[in-house]
Amino acid sequence: MIKCAFYLAPDGKLLDQPDMEQIKGFLVGGEGLLWLDIEDVTNEDAELLSNVFCFHPLAVADCISKNIHPPKIDDFDDYLFVIVHGINYHIESDVVETTELALFLGKNYVVTTHDVPMRSTSSVFSRVQANGRHMRRGAEFLAHDILDALVDNIMPTIDEMNDKSATIEDEALHEPKRETLKSIMQLKRSILAIERILSPQRRVIDGLSRSEYALIGERSQIYYRNIYDHLLRMEMLTYNLRDMVEGALNTYLSSVSNRMNEVMKVLTLIATIFIPLTFVAGIYGMNFANMPELQWRYGYFIILIVMAVIGISLAVHFRRRRWF
Amino acid sequence: MIKCAFYLAPDGKLLDQPDMEQIKGFLVGGEGLLWLDIEDVTNEDAELLSNVFCFHPLAVADCISKNIHPPKIDDFDDYLFVIVHGINYHIESDVVETTELALFLGKNYVVTTHDVPMRSTSSVFSRVQANGRHMRRGAEFLAHDILDALVDNIMPTIDEMNDKSATIEDEALHEPKRETLKSIMQLKRSILAIERILSPQRRVIDGLSRSEYALIGERSQIYYRNIYDHLLRMEMLTYNLRDMVEGALNTYLSSVSNRMNEVMKVLTLIATIFIPLTFVAGIYGMNFANMPELQWRYGYFIILIVMAVIGISLAVHFRRRRWF
Amino acid sequence: MIKCAFYLAPDGKLLDQPDMEQIKGFLVGGEGLLWLDIEDVTNEDAELLSNVFCFHPLAVADCISKNIHPPKIDDFDDYLFVIVHGINYHIESDVVETTELALFLGKNYVVTTHDVPMRSTSSVFSRVQANGRHMRRGAEFLAHDILDALVDNIMPTIDEMNDKSATIEDEALHEPKRETLKSIMQLKRSILAIERILSPQRRVIDGLSRSEYALIGERSQIYYRNIYDHLLRMEMLTYNLRDMVEGALNTYLSSVSNRMNEVMKVLTLIATIFIPLTFVAGIYGMNFANMPELQWRYGYFIILIVMAVIGISLAVHFRRRRWF
Amino acid sequence: MIKCAFYLAPDGKLLDQPDMEQIKGFLVGGEGLLWLDIEDVTNEDAELLSNVFCFHPLAVADCISKNIHPPKIDDFDDYLFVIVHGINYHIESDVVETTELALFLGKNYVVTTHDVPMRSTSSVFSRVQANGRHMRRGAEFLAHDILDALVDNIMPTIDEMNDKSATIEDEALHEPKRETLKSIMQLKRSILAIERILSPQRRVIDGLSRSEYALIGERSQIYYRNIYDHLLRMEMLTYNLRDMVEGALNTYLSSVSNRMNEVMKVLTLIATIFIPLTFVAGIYGMNFANMPELQWRYGYFIILIVMAVIGISLAVHFRRRRWF
Amino acid sequence: MIKCAFYLAPDGKLLDQPDMEQIKGFLVGGEGLLWLDIEDVTNEDAELLSNVFCFHPLAVADCISKNIHPPKIDDFDDYLFVIVHGINYHIESDVVETTELALFLGKNYVVTTHDVPMRSTSSVFSRVQANGRHMRRGAEFLAHDILDALVDNIMPTIDEMNDKSATIEDEALHEPKRETLKSIMQLKRSILAIERILSPQRRVIDGLSRSEYALIGERSQIYYRNIYDHLLRMEMLTYNLRDMVEGALNTYLSSVSNRMNEVMKVLTLIATIFIPLTFVAGIYGMNFANMPELQWRYGYFIILIVMAVIGISLAVHFRRRRWF
Repeated sequence: MIKCAFYLAPDGKLLDQPDMEQIKGFLVGGEGLLWLDIEDVTNEDAELLSNVFCFHPLAVADCISKNIHPPKIDDFDDYLFVIVHGINYHIESDVVETTELALFLGKNYVVTTHDVPMRSTSSVFSRVQANGRHMRRGAEFLAHDILDALVDNIMPTIDEMNDKSATIEDEALHEPKRETLKSIMQLKRSILAIERILSPQRRVIDGLSRSEYALIGERSQIYYRNIYDHLLRMEMLTYNLRDMVEGALNTYLSSVSNRMNEVMKVLTLIATIFIPLTFVAGIYGMNFANMPELQWRYGYFIILIVMAVIGISLAVHFRRRRWF
Repeated sequence: MIKCAFYLAPDGKLLDQPDMEQIKGFLVGGEGLLWLDIEDVTNEDAELLSNVFCFHPLAVADCISKNIHPPKIDDFDDYLFVIVHGINYHIESDVVETTELALFLGKNYVVTTHDVPMRSTSSVFSRVQANGRHMRRGAEFLAHDILDALVDNIMPTIDEMNDKSATIEDEALHEPKRETLKSIMQLKRSILAIERILSPQRRVIDGLSRSEYALIGERSQIYYRNIYDHLLRMEMLTYNLRDMVEGALNTYLSSVSNRMNEVMKVLTLIATIFIPLTFVAGIYGMNFANMPELQWRYGYFIILIVMAVIGISLAVHFRRRRWF
Repeated sequence: MIKCAFYLAPDGKLLDQPDMEQIKGFLVGGEGLLWLDIEDVTNEDAELLSNVFCFHPLAVADCISKNIHPPKIDDFDDYLFVIVHGINYHIESDVVETTELALFLGKNYVVTTHDVPMRSTSSVFSRVQANGRHMRRGAEFLAHDILDALVDNIMPTIDEMNDKSATIEDEALHEPKRETLKSIMQLKRSILAIERILSPQRRVIDGLSRSEYALIGERSQIYYRNIYDHLLRMEMLTYNLRDMVEGALNTYLSSVSNRMNEVMKVLTLIATIFIPLTFVAGIYGMNFANMPELQWRYGYFIILIVMAVIGISLAVHFRRRRWF
Repeated sequence: MIKCAFYLAPDGKLLDQPDMEQIKGFLVGGEGLLWLDIEDVTNEDAELLSNVFCFHPLAVADCISKNIHPPKIDDFDDYLFVIVHGINYHIESDVVETTELALFLGKNYVVTTHDVPMRSTSSVFSRVQANGRHMRRGAEFLAHDILDALVDNIMPTIDEMNDKSATIEDEALHEPKRETLKSIMQLKRSILAIERILSPQRRVIDGLSRSEYALIGERSQIYYRNIYDHLLRMEMLTYNLRDMVEGALNTYLSSVSNRMNEVMKVLTLIATIFIPLTFVAGIYGMNFANMPELQWRYGYFIILIVMAVIGISLAVHFRRRRWF
Repeated sequence: MIKCAFYLAPDGKLLDQPDMEQIKGFLVGGEGLLWLDIEDVTNEDAELLSNVFCFHPLAVADCISKNIHPPKIDDFDDYLFVIVHGINYHIESDVVETTELALFLGKNYVVTTHDVPMRSTSSVFSRVQANGRHMRRGAEFLAHDILDALVDNIMPTIDEMNDKSATIEDEALHEPKRETLKSIMQLKRSILAIERILSPQRRVIDGLSRSEYALIGERSQIYYRNIYDHLLRMEMLTYNLRDMVEGALNTYLSSVSNRMNEVMKVLTLIATIFIPLTFVAGIYGMNFANMPELQWRYGYFIILIVMAVIGISLAVHFRRRRWF
């Protein structure tokens, strides 16, 4: 489905559906800028890419495939083929889904393809619809706007993870449950997933921001550099996040073992106090014919007192050694 | 055993067995493409490689040896000698077996040797048998097809491991057994083995995709780059797999220790409630002559109630402190 | 809020508030040095930066934004745009707050902006107020002084952490409490945060200390190198700190498990001595009609002695095996 | 002790003891190849190296010293000074001993020195004795043969470790003993020791296999590359070994804790079943005057049945919760 | 305090105290070599460095400061300023103290400064006093001798640590005490400290041994390379040390947990055997009116035998399952 087609002649024109003839004419040497955004590439779309734009078969194959490819730049002289990753974060299940944006950057056109709807392309598209100015600066700036929107869309996910991480740490400290561990491990995995997305991405954007590619002029490089800085900042934040999550894991483990220790200590307290006392009671439960104490008038009371003394002094002793 | 020999003159010809004279003639300056695929290299085959193709003795020695050599490219000007690794994965025992493909790439020939049957060479061979078109593009493209098939054959293994990993994680959470740990450790080892295969391989393919070697033209480099991207993608996937397996290991360990803790808590519950009660019973089992309570009319019943009160209040206390 | 504006003509002049006309005139080709330090950049300030100084919109955007950007140098030919990080350390809560200083270094001016008050700029400012000499050496030296102050302000934090780490290690050894673990983990996080601040910073200063930028002459490079050495030294110190904290963590964990082991050993001692004795008492509490020992004259005393012997020999046995 | 001296004139000559005059004459410009292999360098040998061969004092000092030096190549224009490491593996004590071979490679001579007898030099020596052909290819090939033998001698050690590692893993699974842990840790240390020997060695051989040194011609470089490949392969194998040993360690730890858990579970089973029953028996052991049940005709049998019911239902309950 | 001043004219002259005039004259163009070794730099010394030698203020500041700076080389064209680290190891407290040596290497002079007495400078000084020959080879060789002595002084520390590590490992295996853990952790920290000293040092010496600095001629580079090799060797040794210490830590932890397990097993043995027996005794301690067994003639003896059978069979059962 070709979601949108755009055209900016000296007088600015907007097309709902791409008109093949017009596009062909334009590509030959038209002035202005054309943007095609294709969601869920069909065979028909693929033919458009292959035959009208004459993109390399391997690049077109990457667009058709539903797999997630690693971020990269391929320089085909006439156009750049860029693959970058966005994020779809489902906060309740804490799953980070990677989405792929393929972008062809030519002299007077930008073609973007993706398998699922992407907030970045649609938001830039709305902005462009509202104001043609965004197109006037040329293809390299339009590509920048799209990539910038894609990268900025990762930020809210990191913020949400930050909040979640704080919640989990609190839970780990005050009421460690089995679910807490599961959440911690899930969150850690999500953070690792984001790190793995950010760092190759950063290398791609770094490439674009240097004077390696003829299609990206010096004037726009600093803007690509800016995206690079954003990615770097996000990486710093994910490192902090990982620290937090590892802290939460340690807190959880120590909370759990602390509770267990508490339980064991109570067992020990009860057992070490009552086992000797029970033994004493056992002695005077014996049926020997000749046990003088049993005949004493206050034998029973004396022995009760003796037991109390033993019990209390054991408890005091344990208290003093800071066991309880 | 020379499993197959192929020859494509301007008019396309297929040989069942290599004809030495023909080959010698062809190698001198024949147009077209020759592919020899040798399985389990014999001394006779080795002589063919040494005397007819005049390959370097060290390269021929690598082909004969049954050892697995690290992936590499040796540039002998007239031909490239490439070693790459494939995978044989036995899912039930979860063992990753590395297989080795040695490939000589000359101007108008490709020679492949391997110790065990390989799906990659045989599938390309069938395709070539069905359609000569694959040979027409020249040696560098035939070599690409073989390497591409080899690399793509690793993917199903990663998918299977993915499934297995999910199964194991589930098992670790719901019924941790000793076998679960063994499976986790075995799977982790397999994943590490695959990582170790992928990453040097990637460096070899990276070398082929750059303009380092005269035998690989600019037109085919982008195709080798494509294999490189596949390998990169698989590496990303194995990293995720490793995360999953480490998560499973943590889940297993925490499941096991959780069960143990549960067991210990029940012991503590029973012991801390009944030890004091038994002590009380012990007291009234003593045989002192003068124990007034024993003569009370409802002494027995009173003491039963006292015991019940002690027992219940201890249980309530533990419950309140969330121990059970 | 523009906290201060400074101007040094051949005769040295000090301005309380920047005079736009004067600044514009000076920037064109004035001799001397101008320093603007802007805290909490307002829209008005941003316009000053954009229109009067003609800084690049992206750099100005970085100054306005309240986010912490990663340290970097952007070279805009006429001026350098540098972002570096300072530290605000709250010792009681052990939180390391990163503060950001943005610095524009031109031929005859330095502009610094920051969101929160910074000790480094204010201390250099006071020094400059007291003695114009600091301005006479030119922009690159003023920028050096500010960066130097910023970096030196990190040192006391490391010292404080050092003290704290020693205290915590002591506490972990002698009275491990739950709070100790929390402190250790918090301190570790703070140290990691400082490491993450120091190491990209070092790369930025390294860049300034090499002959990469036209605005920083050879004469001042050695001074920037000096800042670099300070940062390196701090990194070495933070590595040591991390060792100490990890040592403290190990000490804590081993202290806690030691105490638990001690508790368990006492339980075992008491239980293993008294359980057999209670059994013996139980035997002679049985009500069989025919139990000869019960009728012996000294049966009771003999059995008491037997029990004492059993108890003492068990205790001696355990003592010998070094359990207690 | 100069174990052997060799000389190959156009007509092939073999010397038992080096003849100083002959050697001096040969070194000036003799055609052929001289090989001196010195075991346990004496002062006299050192003078030979210093005065006749005119080797650099630092190189000679390295030969005399009994210390193990890190692998390196020193290029003294007229000759290369190479230090490489061999392995002596004592399988019963599982100790990896590093041995050092120092090798001087000149235009028409090779001098090797070592402190202990080395299989690599002696085996090459025997081959040379048997067949002069090995000397005919020149110094660089003789040096290659010696280094190749040295590196190949590491392989059997890795194989033995592989066997040992499998044995240990089995032991860890089926009968974990304290000795098992010691073996695992010892084996791990040996593997680390081998890794540390292989990886700097590889860098040295890598240097020799590139066109960095005038004394090693293009024709022989591919042979040095072959040694490099062997080292790379061994490194891959040691990585696998390390995985196996770490797996064995995990198996051991989990086996031990499994056994402990089993023991604890039996304790819990016995205690939780019998403690309540003992309490019941304790109740009817009390001596209250008025305990109606005691007078019932079948009171005793009823209570026995009650106890059996309690005990069995507890056991069933535990069984159902999969504790046993 | 200027501990020593040295001067070697063609005829060799020795000064006890530096004579300013003579030094000034010499520095202008004197032939020979001057060595000043300053311990605990005073303000007066600093002036000498600044005014007579005209060293850069930052280098002089580094000499005055009591802080430990990271190793580095600063090239001021006329002289090199080198900072390297020595070690003071207190074996009883196992503390590694880093000491700093600052060295100025000029054409005809060497100036060394340090805060504490250093064995390396004083030993070279004695050698120089005994034999002027050491000065005759020029400044670069004197600097080499000092650095060589400094580096060699690290070796005994590593040897001592090696011994200590073996002692500790033994202790960990045979009598693990709390102090053992503390020693292990302290030793590990010392080893890490040494690693951190060696590795940046190595980079400094590596710089000196390459042809980067005009003041260090080709002839002496191989000698600096030799120091580099020593440092490399020490690094290898510290890696082995770290392995040993980590082995000791594992041994300790497993020894401690082994002892605990042993203790727990005894508890379990005693408890699981006596708890059922006590229950049996409890049954026959009940006071039911109608308990036929109690009236049997040999009831008591039968029940004693029953108990013995139960106890022994439990013990045998446990023995068989290898618990004890």
